[in-house]
Amino acid sequence: MMNNNISYINEKFVTIEQALIPINDLGIQRGYGVFDFLRVNGNDPLFIDDHLDRFYFSAEVMRLNIQQERAELKSIIQQLINTNDLNHSGIRLILTGGASDDGYKINEPRLSIIQQSLKPPPDKLPETGIRLASNEYQRQLPHVKTTDYLMAIWLQPWMKEKNADDILYHYNGLITECPRSNFFMITKENILVTPKEKILNGITRKKIIALAKKLEIKIEERDIHLNEIKEIKEAFITSSTKRMLPVSKIDDYILSDLYRSEIMQTIWQELINQEREN
Amino acid sequence: MMNNNISYINEKFVTIEQALIPINDLGIQRGYGVFDFLRVNGNDPLFIDDHLDRFYFSAEVMRLNIQQERAELKSIIQQLINTNDLNHSGIRLILTGGASDDGYKINEPRLSIIQQSLKPPPDKLPETGIRLASNEYQRQLPHVKTTDYLMAIWLQPWMKEKNADDILYHYNGLITECPRSNFFMITKENILVTPKEKILNGITRKKIIALAKKLEIKIEERDIHLNEIKEIKEAFITSSTKRMLPVSKIDDYILSDLYRSEIMQTIWQELINQEREN
Repeated sequence: MMNNNISYINEKFVTIEQALIPINDLGIQRGYGVFDFLRVNGNDPLFIDDHLDRFYFSAEVMRLNIQQERAELKSIIQQLINTNDLNHSGIRLILTGGASDDGYKINEPRLSIIQQSLKPPPDKLPETGIRLASNEYQRQLPHVKTTDYLMAIWLQPWMKEKNADDILYHYNGLITECPRSNFFMITKENILVTPKEKILNGITRKKIIALAKKLEIKIEERDIHLNEIKEIKEAFITSSTKRMLPVSKIDDYILSDLYRSEIMQTIWQELINQEREN
Repeated sequence: MMNNNISYINEKFVTIEQALIPINDLGIQRGYGVFDFLRVNGNDPLFIDDHLDRFYFSAEVMRLNIQQERAELKSIIQQLINTNDLNHSGIRLILTGGASDDGYKINEPRLSIIQQSLKPPPDKLPETGIRLASNEYQRQLPHVKTTDYLMAIWLQPWMKEKNADDILYHYNGLITECPRSNFFMITKENILVTPKEKILNGITRKKIIALAKKLEIKIEERDIHLNEIKEIKEAFITSSTKRMLPVSKIDDYILSDLYRSEIMQTIWQELINQEREN
């Protein structure tokens, strides 16, 4: 979230001191906004078309009109990347409701683009897994990448009490996702499974589903019941920032150390290949 | 939401052009913030202690520390009111998560106070009731006045399609509240009833419960089931801005024109008396 460089706000490139938005924006007053976040390798934005597809989709569902056509938006992003010239970074596109006369009606949404330095994910699949604590919660408008992370931040002390590194949401007995990542498990029959409904459609998730089909890894997009946790062989979470993180524990259930299995290694390597081909 | 006057942001009184906050505030990035809104009659803030009680409560639940002690905060609010010197207005206190290094951790919350002109509520209880459309939804952390109005704004076109003026939330078969108002009904036995659980504790609601007890109006705080709608004699919603608004219709159920009943009139008059005594 540190952006000690140039941002793009209100159709202008601005310094960090000028990276401000009016207090009457619906994004502040009413938490009404969407965003997207993509990783940038050198000056090369990764999977930008996938991210822009989702950004325009989020905006449309929320009735937030993006003034810029895709080509123009891409050009602005590339200009920003070239100007800041960071080694490895993230671009955050933020679209808020904008100023509103009555605090409710959407007039002209406001686009802000900020860039921040980012540690690149490691070359090798991490050996140490993360611990997840499951919590009952369903994100509002789950297919939309809204700025609503109220529960995720509010639950941080609870998560630490549970000695966990991240939260695994479930609702009505079904596992959905982590606050900023998608969830995958590998069953004892070596089937890769990921929840299908009421989740954010992550870009890394999408890549993995496609490559699994290409590499003939058995994959199912389907409901995962909470009581399946004790049947999991391996699990991992995915995001554009982290690529993949193996899971070592879900609540009290300790996963075997098999998470450096061939399936996970193959997916990891293929994701790196796709980033290189980007 | 128009504040064409002086605001208080980052511990300074600022003009509208300076009423800006950094894009990296958790209030924008993660929708993490609370607020309160109080009506100001001339230069007299109404029920300020009730609002500050709730504001400090909201802040505490969200782990957002308010730097200012209550006396100091009251003095800042009064200074702002005296400076802007508006006829009738609203004061909005906004407490956002502030700048965050990692976009998740709360460091120093940011307090913003803005004031806006407001049409005063009428002298007499409005004769025309409003139409409510019921929608299944439960606000996150309902006792906390968070800035999360994502669903309220998102549902506006749906509400208009239903020819309604406001939304009535229900969840698990129970009526809770409107997005910005509390709900009251009067039964055929002349009992005033308002939901007790999973709602925001409105200041006007609190006043009405207290005055009903004083005036020996029978009142119950309890669950209201959706299937009780068809048994309602009268209904109204309450808020600091509107005081009370009679309800003429809930979904397809048309309420009788008895909503100008003695009970409602008595409450209305007593609320005005309390504002005068403020």
